Amino acid sequence: MTAERASNRRTGRRPGHPNTRAAILSAAKGEFAARGFDRVSVREIGRAAGVDPALVHHYFGSKDDLLLAALEVPFDPRELIPALVEQGTAGLGVRIATTFLSVWDDEVRQLPLVALVRSAMSSESAADLLRSGLGQMILTPVADAIGTPDAQLRASLVGSQLMGLIMARYLVRMEPVASAPAATVAAALAPTLQRYIDGPL
Amino acid sequence: MTAERASNRRTGRRPGHPNTRAAILSAAKGEFAARGFDRVSVREIGRAAGVDPALVHHYFGSKDDLLLAALEVPFDPRELIPALVEQGTAGLGVRIATTFLSVWDDEVRQLPLVALVRSAMSSESAADLLRSGLGQMILTPVADAIGTPDAQLRASLVGSQLMGLIMARYLVRMEPVASAPAATVAAALAPTLQRYIDGPL
Repeated sequence: MTAERASNRRTGRRPGHPNTRAAILSAAKGEFAARGFDRVSVREIGRAAGVDPALVHHYFGSKDDLLLAALEVPFDPRELIPALVEQGTAGLGVRIATTFLSVWDDEVRQLPLVALVRSAMSSESAADLLRSGLGQMILTPVADAIGTPDAQLRASLVGSQLMGLIMARYLVRMEPVASAPAATVAAALAPTLQRYIDGPL
Repeated sequence: MTAERASNRRTGRRPGHPNTRAAILSAAKGEFAARGFDRVSVREIGRAAGVDPALVHHYFGSKDDLLLAALEVPFDPRELIPALVEQGTAGLGVRIATTFLSVWDDEVRQLPLVALVRSAMSSESAADLLRSGLGQMILTPVADAIGTPDAQLRASLVGSQLMGLIMARYLVRMEPVASAPAATVAAALAPTLQRYIDGPL
């Protein structure tokens, strides 16, 4: 129990019975994969895990928190993205490009991220989670910051270039973009992202 | 045999003994996957299939032809890409974007292409084939047309945006870019590709 508390402190996770936590996480993964993020409620995850829904909230917080834990996303987009967009759309392209490369070039975070994208490529249910759950945590604040009638299209174009960089640099490792310095790649991408954000389409 | 000949005429494949052809194709897939496109010779594929290398050339032509058959690529990049670049770099961005969308939006060709990219995401050896074999058939002529010292980087940036469109529109199907009209997406992407080709990076 002492070791578990120490571990919880390190990871920022709430303490509690490890079996209950694992059961909820397992149920969430199963329900999300089987039925999709949007069609599953916290109440249903609690039922599938055989626990009171209040315990789901106690261990994981919101449904978004539960998704991030289930996907093992190594950063919190709900903190990262607002920090980028709160300064407005001017210069947003370079801020997104720089932050994106610093997160993905970090080897500790790169491994779970690559695994996440790989699973989304091979499984329809994982693709759904990337699209409806994580995608909305990332793209909706960007679209809100853009604020035009075509903001959703613009945000998804930003997403398309970033997903392409994931493939070219981290998954397929196409040279020279795979081993070019982060600053070179960020400088090349920033005007693309900026035009998708507020330039002519 | 008559049916086979008729089939060969339809598909443009050379006639011959179907077992020999299948054995060569199976050996090629195995050798490419195990050792990588660049490290396998036509002679070695013949040996693995238990046939004379001349038969490999008879059935499939070059090693590039063999790769396209092994990957079941539903178009020939060695015809498609030169037709795009022979008019020079002016307007190349819009030509690439328009052609890319017409190939990928074609449902008959989309299925094998999606399967190809999916396998490259989940398997290191398939990723190698996409990178070293097919990648070079597509990116090298583009880099040659660009012709600057940083042409390889520019070509791989073009590749990154196109791979991102594959993910966003055809694999993960992120809206609205997934169901936007092809002309809308081509118009949005063309200036990105053109800047990667000959604009400031």
